[in-house]
Amino acid sequence: MPTFKLTVAYDGTGFVGWQRQASGASVQQALEHALAELAGGPVAVAGAGRTDAGVHALAQVASCAIDRPVDAATIVRAVNARLPAAIRLLAAEEAPPTFHARFGARAKTYQYRLWNGEVLDPFERSYAWHVPGALDLAAMAEAARCLEGRHDFAAFQAAGGAAHSTEREVMRSEVARAAGSLVTYEVCGNGFLRHMVRAMVGSLVEIGRGRRSPAWLADVLAARDRTRAGPTAPAQGLFLVRVEYGD
Amino acid sequence: MPTFKLTVAYDGTGFVGWQRQASGASVQQALEHALAELAGGPVAVAGAGRTDAGVHALAQVASCAIDRPVDAATIVRAVNARLPAAIRLLAAEEAPPTFHARFGARAKTYQYRLWNGEVLDPFERSYAWHVPGALDLAAMAEAARCLEGRHDFAAFQAAGGAAHSTEREVMRSEVARAAGSLVTYEVCGNGFLRHMVRAMVGSLVEIGRGRRSPAWLADVLAARDRTRAGPTAPAQGLFLVRVEYGD
Repeated sequence: MPTFKLTVAYDGTGFVGWQRQASGASVQQALEHALAELAGGPVAVAGAGRTDAGVHALAQVASCAIDRPVDAATIVRAVNARLPAAIRLLAAEEAPPTFHARFGARAKTYQYRLWNGEVLDPFERSYAWHVPGALDLAAMAEAARCLEGRHDFAAFQAAGGAAHSTEREVMRSEVARAAGSLVTYEVCGNGFLRHMVRAMVGSLVEIGRGRRSPAWLADVLAARDRTRAGPTAPAQGLFLVRVEYGD
Repeated sequence: MPTFKLTVAYDGTGFVGWQRQASGASVQQALEHALAELAGGPVAVAGAGRTDAGVHALAQVASCAIDRPVDAATIVRAVNARLPAAIRLLAAEEAPPTFHARFGARAKTYQYRLWNGEVLDPFERSYAWHVPGALDLAAMAEAARCLEGRHDFAAFQAAGGAAHSTEREVMRSEVARAAGSLVTYEVCGNGFLRHMVRAMVGSLVEIGRGRRSPAWLADVLAARDRTRAGPTAPAQGLFLVRVEYGD
């Protein structure tokens, strides 16, 4: 039974998130539905990152086994013909039978987009968090860097997050001004707790607005207490950008 | 009664177009509604370009008179607080009482976006026309240039277009490959007939696909016969980018 690695992009706006829910359209369900028609039977899809409702993906990675001889190009064509336009299968490739998109992922990169202008660009309303007013980007960048390294990120885990260990490694954590009013936060790590990126962004914005100092973030991290961190940034600014695997 | 020049951006996806219709949400209606609340009475808004259903604007210009002392910054704040997020008032400035957004416009620039990749980026599904397969951009660019100048554009006017004269001047008409799979067509003219840009794009794509030669477009233009031009490109790829006025 050949195993496939699927690369998927989606506009998360109309979905309850990656994962199947009791009600509402999920990305996983749409993919499984489209693959089942092709495979002539149920197909289970595992995603690298279980993105929340409203969170987008430029290149989510998923794995599945298909009990039928089918080549990768046919999968891309047939699945895209069945998927809603908000989800696109960008690529499919055959993978070793042991490949699992979530357990095998070595690193994931997320980008969070802030719109730091007085008036929110209407084309960004589902793809950025509107944060008007002065933002001290140098302070935000300094604080972001202190999140790099191996830490216990319990301070940035949502209630309901049920990870066995809250220790993770963050390889890169960077704030930058992109074109015009757009500010981006990019973070690469070996794993992320529930709402972790959004909680980090909410805290970084507190610092950008001058309500907290960069040193405060290191204290929050050390305290491992979610009640001390900033609010959780809204879902629509978050994009899963890249998933990396070992060779 | 002070007159204002309004600069407006909108995602046209959910609207029946700029102009008020018997049913369905129009951009003009949304703006007039928001302005009426501010002005305490009905306000009539004139737009420079009457964009069709699904067509977007980065900087549409509109004019209106408000029978109440109110400064420009207050208009921007108050109107945006009342508008749906898909429409944003980017700027308001007081204008001479004779200013009229449509009659005074000297030049308008439209951009049309084509997605020339096998798989349509899901984030572009409402903002580009998906044209997969080989496209001869050099041939398209050559044909586009022959539209520059003062011509009778009757060949590119939709049935139902009711312009007195079909002569217009096109100052710039350019095809270019933007980043990755994105191809843009940008056209600046002193005025446009109904569906003119979309009919030109439909014809340029016929040339790009090799079904017609660049010289064919000059023949179509000279023949002034709509039935000879290519199909009308879909609305969602079209953006009103800029409107220019004399001093």
